[in-house]
Amino acid sequence: MEEGIPLVIPEVNPEAMEGIKVGMGKGALIANPNCSTIICLMAVTPLHKHAKVQRMVVSTYQAASGAGAAAMEELELQTREVLEGKPPTCDIFKQQYAFNLFSHNAPILSNGYNEEEMKLVKETRKIWNDMNVKVTATCIRVPVMRAHAESVNLQFQQPLDEDTAKDILKSAPGVVVIDDRASNHFPTPLEVSNKDNVAVGRIRRDLSQDGNQGLDIFVCGDQIRKGAALNAIQIAEMLL
Amino acid sequence: MEEGIPLVIPEVNPEAMEGIKVGMGKGALIANPNCSTIICLMAVTPLHKHAKVQRMVVSTYQAASGAGAAAMEELELQTREVLEGKPPTCDIFKQQYAFNLFSHNAPILSNGYNEEEMKLVKETRKIWNDMNVKVTATCIRVPVMRAHAESVNLQFQQPLDEDTAKDILKSAPGVVVIDDRASNHFPTPLEVSNKDNVAVGRIRRDLSQDGNQGLDIFVCGDQIRKGAALNAIQIAEMLL
Repeated sequence: MEEGIPLVIPEVNPEAMEGIKVGMGKGALIANPNCSTIICLMAVTPLHKHAKVQRMVVSTYQAASGAGAAAMEELELQTREVLEGKPPTCDIFKQQYAFNLFSHNAPILSNGYNEEEMKLVKETRKIWNDMNVKVTATCIRVPVMRAHAESVNLQFQQPLDEDTAKDILKSAPGVVVIDDRASNHFPTPLEVSNKDNVAVGRIRRDLSQDGNQGLDIFVCGDQIRKGAALNAIQIAEMLL
Repeated sequence: MEEGIPLVIPEVNPEAMEGIKVGMGKGALIANPNCSTIICLMAVTPLHKHAKVQRMVVSTYQAASGAGAAAMEELELQTREVLEGKPPTCDIFKQQYAFNLFSHNAPILSNGYNEEEMKLVKETRKIWNDMNVKVTATCIRVPVMRAHAESVNLQFQQPLDEDTAKDILKSAPGVVVIDDRASNHFPTPLEVSNKDNVAVGRIRRDLSQDGNQGLDIFVCGDQIRKGAALNAIQIAEMLL
């Protein structure tokens, strides 16, 4: 992600397109944010606009699709092999992925974070145009095919109770709320696969924060759809 | 978890055994903490003793074994069925578990947390004998067979840099450090399965906290071994 190139999530920061429209004839570039960033910010930004996120702690549950079609094939092949008692084929991932999980394979930087995590940190700041927002992330690859999940803990500058948060999310563009406590029904990767909307649930007041300025939420999004292709198409449509 | 019954993790709070030894002839009870609590506190407590945890944010990646042997069998059966294009058998879990993940099936309480998460919150306070420590948790079931993983974000009262934290963990009882940034080698459920030690890695300074009082870590532990049976045996051995 080069400096100076706008990152755009149409529902979140359409204003970033302005500079692009001006510069279009000069070969201006725009960029799709990282999949985990898009999925997270689709759900969090409506809340941010209401009560201003001061700090965000993210733990991801990332699908094979994020590493490409061949990675999805390798997960399936490995799973068949493991069920047959054979050693797993490790071409793309250097370890067993079937029935296992591991810290994201992106290179680790000198600060101990991997590139996937630092993208979430940096891109959030860029997209929200707030260099002070505090973000930490732990990105983990899980044996799921095509949709990411993210556990997100939020600290707000203003009070934001869970009911208001739920209402905000129910009217947020590109977001659907799946939050049924009685039936224990919340977002799952399977349920959002092949869908455009990002699903959010487990919306609750964070017991570990004083007052009413903390929330915990759980978000799922199809990594291929909104996490990549759909977002790119939406950006292109804004230019036409 | 009833009030007044001591919870014991031998490496963490052996002093809780004192009351038991006194009361043994009177039919005293002791309890094994929850699996996710044990695995988390095995790694975090040595750091807590050094710099006092003020707040802890946990996101879990819990294996099928936590729901019993039949749950492990259902995950395997479902995986075979899904690979053959058949609908998955859902007797124990009411949804597809193969290649999927979901919010823990434990009942949701009125505060929006499920019982598994509240165990982590309450048991941490009890085991550390600190009713003020702030803990939040999101517990997620992932399609892994027998070891839990946990992403843990920590806020300390005293400064604690990542190198000191790593040294503390290297000498912590029942804990092994797997933290190789160069080769991107960190704890995985597969690697700790059938082992007694809890593994910890991704030890790094939390960029989202000012100063040097925040850490992020990733922990894995065999849910059946240290998460349950081994801990119980260790408690029993202390009584003999």
